Amino acid sequence: MGVVVTNIKRADRDAADALAKYGVATVHEAQGRVGLMHQRMRPIYHGPAISGTAVTCTLPPGDNWMIHVAVEQCQPGDILVAATISESHSGYFGELLGTALKARGVRGLILDAGCRDIDELEELGFPVWSRSISAHGTVKETIGDVNVPVSCGDALVNPGDVIVADTDGVVVVPRMKAAEVLAASQARIEKEEQSRARYQAGELGLDVNNMRGRLAEMGLVYMDQKDWEAQQ
Amino acid sequence: MGVVVTNIKRADRDAADALAKYGVATVHEAQGRVGLMHQRMRPIYHGPAISGTAVTCTLPPGDNWMIHVAVEQCQPGDILVAATISESHSGYFGELLGTALKARGVRGLILDAGCRDIDELEELGFPVWSRSISAHGTVKETIGDVNVPVSCGDALVNPGDVIVADTDGVVVVPRMKAAEVLAASQARIEKEEQSRARYQAGELGLDVNNMRGRLAEMGLVYMDQKDWEAQQ
Amino acid sequence: MGVVVTNIKRADRDAADALAKYGVATVHEAQGRVGLMHQRMRPIYHGPAISGTAVTCTLPPGDNWMIHVAVEQCQPGDILVAATISESHSGYFGELLGTALKARGVRGLILDAGCRDIDELEELGFPVWSRSISAHGTVKETIGDVNVPVSCGDALVNPGDVIVADTDGVVVVPRMKAAEVLAASQARIEKEEQSRARYQAGELGLDVNNMRGRLAEMGLVYMDQKDWEAQQ
Amino acid sequence: MGVVVTNIKRADRDAADALAKYGVATVHEAQGRVGLMHQRMRPIYHGPAISGTAVTCTLPPGDNWMIHVAVEQCQPGDILVAATISESHSGYFGELLGTALKARGVRGLILDAGCRDIDELEELGFPVWSRSISAHGTVKETIGDVNVPVSCGDALVNPGDVIVADTDGVVVVPRMKAAEVLAASQARIEKEEQSRARYQAGELGLDVNNMRGRLAEMGLVYMDQKDWEAQQ
Amino acid sequence: MGVVVTNIKRADRDAADALAKYGVATVHEAQGRVGLMHQRMRPIYHGPAISGTAVTCTLPPGDNWMIHVAVEQCQPGDILVAATISESHSGYFGELLGTALKARGVRGLILDAGCRDIDELEELGFPVWSRSISAHGTVKETIGDVNVPVSCGDALVNPGDVIVADTDGVVVVPRMKAAEVLAASQARIEKEEQSRARYQAGELGLDVNNMRGRLAEMGLVYMDQKDWEAQQ
Amino acid sequence: MGVVVTNIKRADRDAADALAKYGVATVHEAQGRVGLMHQRMRPIYHGPAISGTAVTCTLPPGDNWMIHVAVEQCQPGDILVAATISESHSGYFGELLGTALKARGVRGLILDAGCRDIDELEELGFPVWSRSISAHGTVKETIGDVNVPVSCGDALVNPGDVIVADTDGVVVVPRMKAAEVLAASQARIEKEEQSRARYQAGELGLDVNNMRGRLAEMGLVYMDQKDWEAQQ
Repeated sequence: MGVVVTNIKRADRDAADALAKYGVATVHEAQGRVGLMHQRMRPIYHGPAISGTAVTCTLPPGDNWMIHVAVEQCQPGDILVAATISESHSGYFGELLGTALKARGVRGLILDAGCRDIDELEELGFPVWSRSISAHGTVKETIGDVNVPVSCGDALVNPGDVIVADTDGVVVVPRMKAAEVLAASQARIEKEEQSRARYQAGELGLDVNNMRGRLAEMGLVYMDQKDWEAQQ
Repeated sequence: MGVVVTNIKRADRDAADALAKYGVATVHEAQGRVGLMHQRMRPIYHGPAISGTAVTCTLPPGDNWMIHVAVEQCQPGDILVAATISESHSGYFGELLGTALKARGVRGLILDAGCRDIDELEELGFPVWSRSISAHGTVKETIGDVNVPVSCGDALVNPGDVIVADTDGVVVVPRMKAAEVLAASQARIEKEEQSRARYQAGELGLDVNNMRGRLAEMGLVYMDQKDWEAQQ
Repeated sequence: MGVVVTNIKRADRDAADALAKYGVATVHEAQGRVGLMHQRMRPIYHGPAISGTAVTCTLPPGDNWMIHVAVEQCQPGDILVAATISESHSGYFGELLGTALKARGVRGLILDAGCRDIDELEELGFPVWSRSISAHGTVKETIGDVNVPVSCGDALVNPGDVIVADTDGVVVVPRMKAAEVLAASQARIEKEEQSRARYQAGELGLDVNNMRGRLAEMGLVYMDQKDWEAQQ
Repeated sequence: MGVVVTNIKRADRDAADALAKYGVATVHEAQGRVGLMHQRMRPIYHGPAISGTAVTCTLPPGDNWMIHVAVEQCQPGDILVAATISESHSGYFGELLGTALKARGVRGLILDAGCRDIDELEELGFPVWSRSISAHGTVKETIGDVNVPVSCGDALVNPGDVIVADTDGVVVVPRMKAAEVLAASQARIEKEEQSRARYQAGELGLDVNNMRGRLAEMGLVYMDQKDWEAQQ
Repeated sequence: MGVVVTNIKRADRDAADALAKYGVATVHEAQGRVGLMHQRMRPIYHGPAISGTAVTCTLPPGDNWMIHVAVEQCQPGDILVAATISESHSGYFGELLGTALKARGVRGLILDAGCRDIDELEELGFPVWSRSISAHGTVKETIGDVNVPVSCGDALVNPGDVIVADTDGVVVVPRMKAAEVLAASQARIEKEEQSRARYQAGELGLDVNNMRGRLAEMGLVYMDQKDWEAQQ
Repeated sequence: MGVVVTNIKRADRDAADALAKYGVATVHEAQGRVGLMHQRMRPIYHGPAISGTAVTCTLPPGDNWMIHVAVEQCQPGDILVAATISESHSGYFGELLGTALKARGVRGLILDAGCRDIDELEELGFPVWSRSISAHGTVKETIGDVNVPVSCGDALVNPGDVIVADTDGVVVVPRMKAAEVLAASQARIEKEEQSRARYQAGELGLDVNNMRGRLAEMGLVYMDQKDWEAQQ
């Protein structure tokens, strides 16, 4: 009733590593606005920005046994993605498991449930993006799966996909698209740099993006407040 | 189908500027406990406290086009108030638009939707109060209105009203009442200073506010725990 | 219609004081995973970790009068636990009441409602765990009870119980169990220290906890990704 | 500190009455997809569909006094719109007030808070759209306003506007636009009737709406499942 | 680690039985507006209205074992009150357990978690008030308590208390107050009957409750809409 | 940027059709408690219970264009599964699209967003399970995918999987497991029938399931209420 898939294919290492610096918002745009997890997935402490390859697992309600199983499947550069199969806010993860994952070179955890030991995990430097913060412990009675496709944070994650996570949230890049998305991210950054300079100089988005004509076509009208009030 | 109201009347500049230092809680009390936005409106980073005059706009679901239109209507000292017309958590606003607004002297954004580029906006020093944090981008396909009355954060905002925002939330002061509310805020602060000194000295609110008589009238009784337990 | 129970029995002072350093997650585990408040109870600012004895009160909707009454019943080392009797997000508590409680040696407030004056309370150094943050003031028209058993944050609190609160949340330790839970917390910390050392050395939880046999019994199988994909 | 605005202008009676039969979804489309209240506003019992002219009032937290004041301002054909100024779930309204409103010919209540006496109100035949259902009573201690513009259900309502409410929710039609929206609703219904006949006959929306060309332009491709799987 | 308290004292049977017909809203008012559960507790199907004496139990996350233990402690006329100790939405209860409880003469279940087999329970005629509806099954691995005081639906319930539940929600009447609350409920109904007659005759609450003087004292003013608009 | 996968493999038709009568709770148990969608997915009207094969599509925020594209890929016996890629509550689906799907023999819609025309869809007899009810219309500007794996209602759905939906919620059965789950569902029903007879006869779950020994081993103790109270 439970399977651990081994020897998974992982995304290109260089691309997986390089995506962190572009950040979630840029990567999400660069791959066509897909793959973003739900906004409920928030960092448990301020600051971290990571990317890496996904090892996945599923968690029965109130049961964190499969995290222990998943640790063994992790390699340096991985990010563990732990999905629940029923909404739960117990604290499935704390500082001891953080120590174990960090010792294997894992960069962080994406957990669609509760997390505890927040201060200790910050001190340890092991970042977690979770649905909630709760000290409520879990049992080890029921098994699940490791390295199968999962739905985590309302997003589909396949083992070996790239995960990018920062203050803006968490985004999933399909394994085979990492290099392509990396290139698109770089292109987007360069284009934004040009826009930024124009905005800093006081230009309007209406002009930078040449929007006035289309707005008029769609029927946008400008009206002095006195005239507007008179017609209400 | 869309209107941009121009040349709006704004609240008195000095009063609008001065209200920031009193803070949301005091201003809200001073104007009779009305005009507070819903508690879902939270600052995206810790620290800012601002006040200014409102420029308003409405946003169709998943569409941030009208923010570009609204930028042009902003003046130094304004705060942009962006209302959605259907609950949405996409990221309607990021660092590029923050750069554009800051270049015009706008002090911040009140956004009843999602915001992204949190770290970049903090670095830029452009504060936002929003409903959620999300990297999900928006399109530019549908128009709305600028500088009409809006419902934002469950509060009614007219263009030109004063907005005060800090860690406690966001409050709206009607345009014509800014000076009156400023005076009432100052009076309240002075009165609280007196109470604070008495509390620091160990006096009880029961005595500072002369509450004991009315409590007794309402039937409040004191009972030793032993007696209370005996009657359960 | 309202009662203030006086001369309440409090938990052992030394045990109540000592529990803070073990933290919510450890104490909660040590007492058998009961007594944790709901995860909606969050600290209003980052950092504090406290423990102390509970003084309780109930609050009618939008009415904070009983907090004033409860202040008088507090002693140094207490923590005030304020329960609402209907979901409410108004701001029942601010800096003036914080000043009054601090002057009496109270260590913090657990408030199943809204709190305001967040920045001022942080500056004052008076920590609050609350359901929400809201500047909306409350009235003083209706009475409730002080030092009766209450349901706060979905947990049952009796006056005199120990409250432990930190970044992970809030846990309640029954008055008569404080010493027992303290000893169990210490034992747990020592056991975790041993596990931590093994995890830091790279050992797996599967081995540290001797889990492999039972997992196999429950039917967990390992399968190469190629084989797994072939059978889908 | 409170005002009751009297002798309000109301929308055209015939238009206000006629809009009920078109329903919320059609009216909302017909006026350009604005004015819809938040989806939290739900009917307390199944079935009713009404339209009428708005009398508005504001409610302090946990206080329903202003509903009594508002009753007197109501005329036959009105719908009372009661907005709260801070999120609250107490039961501000029950069967006695329903009896009073029904006796004045009021058609229903839109209440951004809790409602009680659900079964009694259904038996009475007085429909309510509310945020929640709660038996928790309210006090009569603080005043608010009647017939001022309000933010209710995240929508802006001016006194005299038309309210349309049914199983799909609640929509607000500005007072001066009632006749125009009525005509647009009728036009929309007629157009939909034509589409419906084609759909019933098995035609596809792709063809009825002539969408295939634009989809291809945007890059939509069709691919046999075998080919798609091979490229993953 | 778990206790089943036996031979509990129960509220007066006649009073416990009689309260159903007064309903939740009236009973809640009659006992001074305390004891109401949170509005998240909703009936799983339309119609039932019950009262009875509480048997309580606590449920670990995702574990319904203690419901089986609690069944044995139930007598005819009881209502089972099942509290979770951490927010959970699994389906702890279904038709088989409903059959078991009904066979013992239990009148219903109050469950601060998820319920399943909704249609089957309606057909069986066994009413449940729950936090959510979910088919997700639970395990039987961890024990809790039966017939201890619990926090359920944000309310404190002692074993033997009276539970009243209907479409408006769920209210708890302390064991020793059942007869007193019954009398007060009857008195309230009689008083409401008089008010109802006056409302039906078209009288206003302002007059029935003699409110006009106090409203004027508090500063409520009446103003023609033209005058009000002129001063904005 | 968008792909429509054609000629998808579907689950065995007989098994897909037969699962409806077992219902969501039984099917979910029979396949090992996996595949259940989140409890937010609720039927828009009371009563329907269906099963069928999944056609999937993804929906950009506030944009329902891909539903029109997906209709063409549907066959009799299918159920359309529409996933959003960012939380949205607009009304993506109404009676016209329901007419189109029904004309193709589609049995229902699973929609992780808002639905409108509730009464019309009930009259038409086209069932929908949705996240919310909202009249807010959507645009047709952005494309997505059809018949790719999706995350809908927090569950992973592959095209061709079996969907079972009723009052208890929605469960997904992997395409290749339909026959196996069907057999397990039948076995479970037969086993439950035996338990039901024993429960109806008044036997306790403690005995039917032989639980007493294990409960005692885990430390469950029975104690008279007088003794329990004495030790508090």
